[in-house]
Amino acid sequence: MRVYLDCVPCFLRQALEAVRLASQDLSIQEKAIRVILQKLSKISWNTSPPHIGREIHTLIKEVTGNPDPYLPLKKRFNQLAINLYPMLEKKVKTANDPFTTTVRLSLAGNMIDFGARPGEKIDIEKEINGALKAPLDKQALEKFKKAVTQAQNILFLGDNAGEVVFDKLLVQEIGPQKITYVVKKKPIINDATLEDAEIVNLTKIVKVIDNGTDFPGTVLSACSKTFINIYEKADLVIAKGQGNYETLNDVKKPIVFLLKIKCPVIAKDIKRNVGDLVIHLNIY
Amino acid sequence: MRVYLDCVPCFLRQALEAVRLASQDLSIQEKAIRVILQKLSKISWNTSPPHIGREIHTLIKEVTGNPDPYLPLKKRFNQLAINLYPMLEKKVKTANDPFTTTVRLSLAGNMIDFGARPGEKIDIEKEINGALKAPLDKQALEKFKKAVTQAQNILFLGDNAGEVVFDKLLVQEIGPQKITYVVKKKPIINDATLEDAEIVNLTKIVKVIDNGTDFPGTVLSACSKTFINIYEKADLVIAKGQGNYETLNDVKKPIVFLLKIKCPVIAKDIKRNVGDLVIHLNIY
Repeated sequence: MRVYLDCVPCFLRQALEAVRLASQDLSIQEKAIRVILQKLSKISWNTSPPHIGREIHTLIKEVTGNPDPYLPLKKRFNQLAINLYPMLEKKVKTANDPFTTTVRLSLAGNMIDFGARPGEKIDIEKEINGALKAPLDKQALEKFKKAVTQAQNILFLGDNAGEVVFDKLLVQEIGPQKITYVVKKKPIINDATLEDAEIVNLTKIVKVIDNGTDFPGTVLSACSKTFINIYEKADLVIAKGQGNYETLNDVKKPIVFLLKIKCPVIAKDIKRNVGDLVIHLNIY
Repeated sequence: MRVYLDCVPCFLRQALEAVRLASQDLSIQEKAIRVILQKLSKISWNTSPPHIGREIHTLIKEVTGNPDPYLPLKKRFNQLAINLYPMLEKKVKTANDPFTTTVRLSLAGNMIDFGARPGEKIDIEKEINGALKAPLDKQALEKFKKAVTQAQNILFLGDNAGEVVFDKLLVQEIGPQKITYVVKKKPIINDATLEDAEIVNLTKIVKVIDNGTDFPGTVLSACSKTFINIYEKADLVIAKGQGNYETLNDVKKPIVFLLKIKCPVIAKDIKRNVGDLVIHLNIY
């Protein structure tokens, strides 16, 4: 998905959030925002939002000298999700339809991105219960279920720290032996890295690799050879979150996108509404 | 009030709105946004938001070749307000406390700014009825009433087109003979100009002048001598809207600000909440 003009104010909004997490020094904050404005005025917009996102967050790290502004938030949300895990596991064990429940919980986990926004309070248990009851495309769900049953090599593209814990339940349900779970190589926004996967013990149940990049999505042309080899062998890709949709929606490959719609631009592109939990299939 | 970092994404958001009103050509829209990003990266931020707003909207006019992007919206809201006028007048005539009612209606008119946002639907009658019941600082209202009764020369700084019609009722109630109503010299966003004041027949009941500028607020250092002479003689200023608050909140002069709080930065500065109708006194 390409960058729309509507993305520009939003890039600035997110940059400001990151800058404030990265440094408390107002003059450094101002300098970073000026450098980003300068960069945005010149950079090509014929690309996807995660391309620009990476440029912006790289600049923020450079100007502020903080290599991982979201680290405290990621730690907090990893721990929060770990604490919720027994409750989530119980919901799956007592569910009539465990597959659907784990899909719903994985989608609920995608709201973690919201929680990561400083200042924005989120009632996680309410979100979880909401996700368990929210309208969901039943046809898409059935096709997704059939696809995971038939697939032998599934590539599971993760999204945010914390959210990984919610994905763990879906990984368990599908069968970890045929899944490779993918994280980012270096910190980018609140995306999960190998460290996050280790903290929440995902590495103990499934093979976890990084994609070789720090784009907040999956930019195939930039990914490592190791990743691309596994990607090419995969007969199904499960892609979490907006960043993966933005970078892979036009790719010819069987992909199931699982995401919570958080922005009007994506809502329009995917023909759904902001707030919707979406199973978007690239398999027909 | 100075520019905060939070204003930067908001400048871009408003610029995009104006650019889309000014031109339907995507390449011109992109060019304008790039020029604005460039300008924002370099311009001093040790100023008020209307200073930056003026720079941005001047650039939009230059790049798009459209001298008044908001003209169709201003015409629409002038006409809408004219159509509402008999109903508004009736509300005042039948009111127990006509002064308070005209203050409330003038505050309701300040929502026109919201209505001017393309795509954002607004139920004006609902807003009006809401404004007639909304919580209002009674002490401030009493002080305001006393101040207008005692004043001999009142300068009434208008804000948006359409809103002028709502102000007309307050002008009538206070007494037009001691009021000079002020509009902008040239089009800026949806601010009222002399043309708007004429269309809604304000010029027939009260002296209307322009301030000599096209800042979306009142930047005294840039105003015309004619305006400054009248400003200096005024023993009370009534200032409508956020732009006037942003440019005059630190000025030593008896000023009554009447505004609907539309942004979190101003809400924080004025210690109120977004959505509040505010009578803010600079007279003690």
